[in-house]
Amino acid sequence: MVTAIVLAAGRSSRMGGGPNKQFLELLGQPLIRYSLTAFSQCSQVAEIVLVRRPDYANEAAQIAREFAKVVALVDGGAERQNSVWNGLEKANGDIVAVHDGARPLVTPALIEATIASAQQHGTGIAATKVVDTIKEATPERTVERTVDRTKLWAVQTPQTVRRDLLRQAYQQVFAAGRIVTDEAAAVEMLGHRVDLVETPFLNLKITTPSDLAMAEALLYSRTK
Amino acid sequence: MVTAIVLAAGRSSRMGGGPNKQFLELLGQPLIRYSLTAFSQCSQVAEIVLVRRPDYANEAAQIAREFAKVVALVDGGAERQNSVWNGLEKANGDIVAVHDGARPLVTPALIEATIASAQQHGTGIAATKVVDTIKEATPERTVERTVDRTKLWAVQTPQTVRRDLLRQAYQQVFAAGRIVTDEAAAVEMLGHRVDLVETPFLNLKITTPSDLAMAEALLYSRTK
Repeated sequence: MVTAIVLAAGRSSRMGGGPNKQFLELLGQPLIRYSLTAFSQCSQVAEIVLVRRPDYANEAAQIAREFAKVVALVDGGAERQNSVWNGLEKANGDIVAVHDGARPLVTPALIEATIASAQQHGTGIAATKVVDTIKEATPERTVERTVDRTKLWAVQTPQTVRRDLLRQAYQQVFAAGRIVTDEAAAVEMLGHRVDLVETPFLNLKITTPSDLAMAEALLYSRTK
Repeated sequence: MVTAIVLAAGRSSRMGGGPNKQFLELLGQPLIRYSLTAFSQCSQVAEIVLVRRPDYANEAAQIAREFAKVVALVDGGAERQNSVWNGLEKANGDIVAVHDGARPLVTPALIEATIASAQQHGTGIAATKVVDTIKEATPERTVERTVDRTKLWAVQTPQTVRRDLLRQAYQQVFAAGRIVTDEAAAVEMLGHRVDLVETPFLNLKITTPSDLAMAEALLYSRTK
């Protein structure tokens, strides 16, 4: 049984401030609805915990009413790890899939692939091979070296982990006073194996207004 | 005086084979025309050398006729470095701007910023800060470590370099029997300083059909 923790408590600093980006409209629908729909369509996902900002409690509750699997709405924290922890406190599944609501292109197939990996190995992290040439540079933008990109992956969400493993990982992160970028990093800190699952499409994260235009083009091209 | 070397000799393996991707249509125009237009609009660019596949000689010549600055059409080589070298043989500028014709969103402002950097430091390489979390993984996709992304840049084109420096760099690459990913890597091999120029927009490289849909959305959003 799987619990999805969907994060919708993001700030919108790169959108020029203002509204919570997961509630911006994409083809006439709030961004967050795309993720909730994808998780609702997965038969293995039994429940969804929606993490939202307190100032968006009403908007979140209204959308959540459309999705029978949403069993709890919780407050976001200061850092991503605090938001995920708040969601974990309400999670009953033996596996937890953490997803950033600013990634609306997620599909049931990708969610299921991360769940299958977590069932087998403990973790299943959506990721894409890095295709650009990558350089390491000084703060003055002078190149120090070309990085061997053949081993590099850009990680995204869903990040799906056995619940006991994820709780243990975050407890250690908090005990050490660390801030980690994602679930994978927390599990790595614990020394536990982390497995990547290749995302077969552009799993765009909405951070700027032009990302919205791109996401609309991509969603539109799926319907064709 | 600046020579642009525009590369249009790419294969289209990720497009399902078939046509040369730089001649695919974007909003009704061949991809390559967008790059040729941007370079033509730069007053500092005096001439353009277009590198194309021999089997696209006719298509390339037809488009080139629309751009007065195109002074030569040359054959692409087995590797990118061979294509660039073929272009260098026809370049008269003291500065050379190499650009991948599969990046249609390039702007005159970005081209000029790379030229300014090359005039000052010898090199000006268009690049964007890496925003994703990056992991290093084994071939079996097990994570080895989280890479510190704060120093990482994804490099693109234009890659603008003093001509004598670029010739010297590629001569050393060929003498050593090496294959490099880009001009920056060739200059790095020589031990010369390489400077990055931050690209303030998504400098998309067209490699899959869905990239075309994205590029169309981005170009459309520029007109608004």
